[in-house]
Amino acid sequence: MGITPVILCGGSGTRLWPLSRPARPKPFLPLLGEETLFEATVARCSGEPFAPPLLVAGAGQLALVESQAGGELGEIVVEPAAKSTAPAIALAAARLPKDAVMLVCPCDHHIADARAFRDAAAKAAALAEAGWLVAFGIAPDRAETGYGYIQVGEALSGGFRVERFVEKPDRTRAEAFLEDGGYCWNGGIFAFRAGTFLEELAMHRPEMAEAARDAAVRGRQEGVRFHPDSAAFAQIEAESVDYAVMEETARAAMVEADMGWSDIGNWQALRDARQGDAEGNIVAGPADLIDCRKVMVESDGPRVSVVGLDDVIVVVNGGEVLVTSGKGAAEVGKLKGAKGG
Amino acid sequence: MGITPVILCGGSGTRLWPLSRPARPKPFLPLLGEETLFEATVARCSGEPFAPPLLVAGAGQLALVESQAGGELGEIVVEPAAKSTAPAIALAAARLPKDAVMLVCPCDHHIADARAFRDAAAKAAALAEAGWLVAFGIAPDRAETGYGYIQVGEALSGGFRVERFVEKPDRTRAEAFLEDGGYCWNGGIFAFRAGTFLEELAMHRPEMAEAARDAAVRGRQEGVRFHPDSAAFAQIEAESVDYAVMEETARAAMVEADMGWSDIGNWQALRDARQGDAEGNIVAGPADLIDCRKVMVESDGPRVSVVGLDDVIVVVNGGEVLVTSGKGAAEVGKLKGAKGG
Repeated sequence: MGITPVILCGGSGTRLWPLSRPARPKPFLPLLGEETLFEATVARCSGEPFAPPLLVAGAGQLALVESQAGGELGEIVVEPAAKSTAPAIALAAARLPKDAVMLVCPCDHHIADARAFRDAAAKAAALAEAGWLVAFGIAPDRAETGYGYIQVGEALSGGFRVERFVEKPDRTRAEAFLEDGGYCWNGGIFAFRAGTFLEELAMHRPEMAEAARDAAVRGRQEGVRFHPDSAAFAQIEAESVDYAVMEETARAAMVEADMGWSDIGNWQALRDARQGDAEGNIVAGPADLIDCRKVMVESDGPRVSVVGLDDVIVVVNGGEVLVTSGKGAAEVGKLKGAKGG
Repeated sequence: MGITPVILCGGSGTRLWPLSRPARPKPFLPLLGEETLFEATVARCSGEPFAPPLLVAGAGQLALVESQAGGELGEIVVEPAAKSTAPAIALAAARLPKDAVMLVCPCDHHIADARAFRDAAAKAAALAEAGWLVAFGIAPDRAETGYGYIQVGEALSGGFRVERFVEKPDRTRAEAFLEDGGYCWNGGIFAFRAGTFLEELAMHRPEMAEAARDAAVRGRQEGVRFHPDSAAFAQIEAESVDYAVMEETARAAMVEADMGWSDIGNWQALRDARQGDAEGNIVAGPADLIDCRKVMVESDGPRVSVVGLDDVIVVVNGGEVLVTSGKGAAEVGKLKGAKGG
């Protein structure tokens, strides 16, 4: 039995503004190397033991998804509106056989070690076959306050029970988790059988489960595209899979995944994922740096000249200029430009 | 007897790149308020006790000088090439009566207190009448390494003897001067009788004195413009008035001038001369600042968004983007763009 990748093609990436824009959002940009994050995600989930992927995408992203998906495509479930992850996964589950093992992957994460990813996926699939809902746990290397955490429970074959999921902590708690050692980051990647997921959803979010089933049953196929019934879909309330299912279920498990994972959540994360020179500077586009350390420049044309700075990120794109620091990068989404102003 | 302002219209201002460019150099930009530094210099030297100013300018700057000079103009001495300050002053002196008191002013300095400037000029003129070569000494408020210093000597009527001129010191010496209290910055503004200056030049730089006299004698008038003889002028070696005369003469004096002086020598100096908001931020052009302190933004069009930074200067002008700090600002002239690359 293969693994069916379910690739969630959401994510506006406003914190990567001004590079990421509504018309060409983060997943579809070549942020690391020549592949886009979406292309890399599809490539990572190709070949044995993976079945062709099932994609869930918004109508606005269809053109980008179809032009970048390439190769063999299972199906694209077209969401009439963004409703977070639980409904997207429910629709995908409803389109698959009950005993299909789904591997749910956001399309905008970076994974440096594809082999470690496949190993973790194989372990997660085995646990999913045994009836578990499996999260990918990433070993934390810093007291990050931007991610959810998983408290690791007792050992299972190939993984662990989840003791509990913890929402994004404050700095003090994040430091305590790191110190404790018994916590992982929640990587947002999950494996379960389609039937198991729908059972748990029906138990914990019965209305969502019903509306998602209706939307799937009454939907229509159009080539590789599947359009859920929009009236039924409209009944669904947006909620993340973490809240709706993973934090509720008694069957949550975790595999450890040491695979060079990053959600490339902001410019600081992107800088960390890129290779710098001896001074830690990273340049894409015309630039002239004097006496700089840990400076990242990304320009789509204008020359960027930087003198005497440490830990500064400069992005020039489409007539907008962004200047921030590693720490400030987390707040870029609050800028007028990032909010479409 | 009035005072004849001799305004030296040089100064490329490469450390204010990318705003200052060869075609519109620093003196002719409205860096503070609506007046350009040149316009403010001319205005400051207008009315009693000042005679119409004599300007010394390069051929490349004539159009800017004539369009911004306004009002009553004595004469413009047009230099065929830039030769630093001593030759420029020598040509001006040669065009004036021997007993005329010259007040030599760079055209690209900022002086916040015009009344204090006039008071200092009057004291300097009185010393000049008595045969002294008078420098304007600026009380230092920091251990600046970018200026020359004057060691203050014994008191004279309205001023002091100059004990000695000191070239730009290193940090340690600058701190010692500040601690000592007996040192002023050399403001680059001088007063002397034309005849006194030419006598001293003839004593210490006889070749320059002779060539300058020849260039003046054989030159030609063309309206308000005076063109020195180019063959004679070509014989002159470039040298600053500090080296050629002030450091050599036994007749050097100084007046104290507490007049809010700045040479606006770089972006840091310009930031200091501008009025910031409560967080010390200063914005000219479209900008969006979040969590910033002492950030200066200057843009000729593109929006500049800055997040989470301290002491950063961002200049967007003519398709160039400069990002630096207060300290880094001193090195902007080393950038490829500033050097015309």
